Amino acid sequence: MTTGPVWINGSLAGRIDPADRGLLLGDGVFDTLAAFRRVPFAGARHLERLVAQACEIGIDIDPRSVRAGWDAVLAASTLDAAVIRTTVTGGTAAGGLWPRDGGAPTLMVTVSPWPRHLFEHPVRLATSGIVRNAGSPTARLKAVGYLDNILAAREAAAAGADEAMLLNGAGRVASTTIANIFALASDRLMTPPGADGVLAGITRGLVLETAVAAGLDAAERSLTPAELVEADSVFITNSVRFIRPVLSIDGAPLQSRGAERVRWLSAALTRQIERECGVDPRLLG
Amino acid sequence: MTTGPVWINGSLAGRIDPADRGLLLGDGVFDTLAAFRRVPFAGARHLERLVAQACEIGIDIDPRSVRAGWDAVLAASTLDAAVIRTTVTGGTAAGGLWPRDGGAPTLMVTVSPWPRHLFEHPVRLATSGIVRNAGSPTARLKAVGYLDNILAAREAAAAGADEAMLLNGAGRVASTTIANIFALASDRLMTPPGADGVLAGITRGLVLETAVAAGLDAAERSLTPAELVEADSVFITNSVRFIRPVLSIDGAPLQSRGAERVRWLSAALTRQIERECGVDPRLLG
Repeated sequence: MTTGPVWINGSLAGRIDPADRGLLLGDGVFDTLAAFRRVPFAGARHLERLVAQACEIGIDIDPRSVRAGWDAVLAASTLDAAVIRTTVTGGTAAGGLWPRDGGAPTLMVTVSPWPRHLFEHPVRLATSGIVRNAGSPTARLKAVGYLDNILAAREAAAAGADEAMLLNGAGRVASTTIANIFALASDRLMTPPGADGVLAGITRGLVLETAVAAGLDAAERSLTPAELVEADSVFITNSVRFIRPVLSIDGAPLQSRGAERVRWLSAALTRQIERECGVDPRLLG
Repeated sequence: MTTGPVWINGSLAGRIDPADRGLLLGDGVFDTLAAFRRVPFAGARHLERLVAQACEIGIDIDPRSVRAGWDAVLAASTLDAAVIRTTVTGGTAAGGLWPRDGGAPTLMVTVSPWPRHLFEHPVRLATSGIVRNAGSPTARLKAVGYLDNILAAREAAAAGADEAMLLNGAGRVASTTIANIFALASDRLMTPPGADGVLAGITRGLVLETAVAAGLDAAERSLTPAELVEADSVFITNSVRFIRPVLSIDGAPLQSRGAERVRWLSAALTRQIERECGVDPRLLG
């Protein structure tokens, strides 16, 4: 059973219809963010991306409804440091892929504890044999169909790693199952572009902006696995676990010449959270 | 709302938990089959594939439970010609991609009317710009994550076609969004292999076996879009709509020199249904 309050279509007592298109067809997108002292961090950016991605797959949602869901679960929760997941689906509809029958979408918000112990915690990556499909718009969406990622994460765990790294069909680095990848090489900070089969993560965007403001040459750029091995440092980002240094790929240790810069970027992100949520997240959870 | 009886985990009054991994992560597989006079057609084959595919993504299900679900919805339904959909998911579990917390899977069976009007009904295909990911095991599974197919079907509808044809990253024909593709060229019947990013459809298997038994040179073989244009006939198969001839691809009419053979294959399949279910499906629905 779910462990915290669940808000579905305006109510903390809502239900999921067995014919929901999210369940039957993966017809939906989602978002996860961290909320500290009941303030969603980077909430406006998360909301904007979620509404845009829903629109891209033909689902119209009202951002005010999403905010209402966030407020409802945060008010009903006792968590000082929480993860909010927002799921939007095509709602309940008769069979068939398309078009929908015009019914209302499903909007669901759940809340769970923020995993404090993963903050800045280093990870070991394993390269997955599962290809990230750069030829599909779904690869750039936070779509609910995560089966490739689930299978890749299982592979990685079996290989003794913490996370799987996926490459696209051209052999370029895409992302991990749940995080974007960055490589730091002297003054250059690089992360693969959307066209390589990458979700434009919110923390990815914040890190790029912070790096540019600090004078680094930070930009989207395709990366090969070999370039990660040669980089001064490699790290991954997501909106719950923020910045985590990568220790090794497939058992081979990476460089850590850029470790100080990675720590600086993480500290800058922590300050950003503190400004927006009024608390240093490391003191919570 | 759903229109017919829904059986979930042993009960016609079951519910879907908002934390179901099928809904949250697309962690599930499904099956659809046609049942005539309450007899599931090729039920043993569908059951075997569903159990095997669930196992492949780490979900153990008892085939007797699936049969019980089929029996329950058929007994509760008034439909003489029905489509049964069976959905298996990783059940309810705490956050994270892997591993699961050991909870029981979700097993859901729904029923809807069989679309009689599509039987042998010809289709116009449009080639999708969305690539079928031959580098993912998910492409060979009937996984619930159908968003690529939904988006491709929308594209096809916008182009005035009935169905979208997807190619893999190497430009080879994979399948339509919901059906396998066959090409007939003199005595050769060809359909793309699983390695091209193809689900091994049950009707696809039946057609291959029937064709071999009838002396055709029928086998899995990679196909280019150009080979479809040159073929004597092209048709698509699935387990609800059976055999449907393809009229055109991207507006260009196809050959129909093999039309008689396609009709013969469809008639053989109809006889097979009649033997197994005791009725010619064209008399129902």
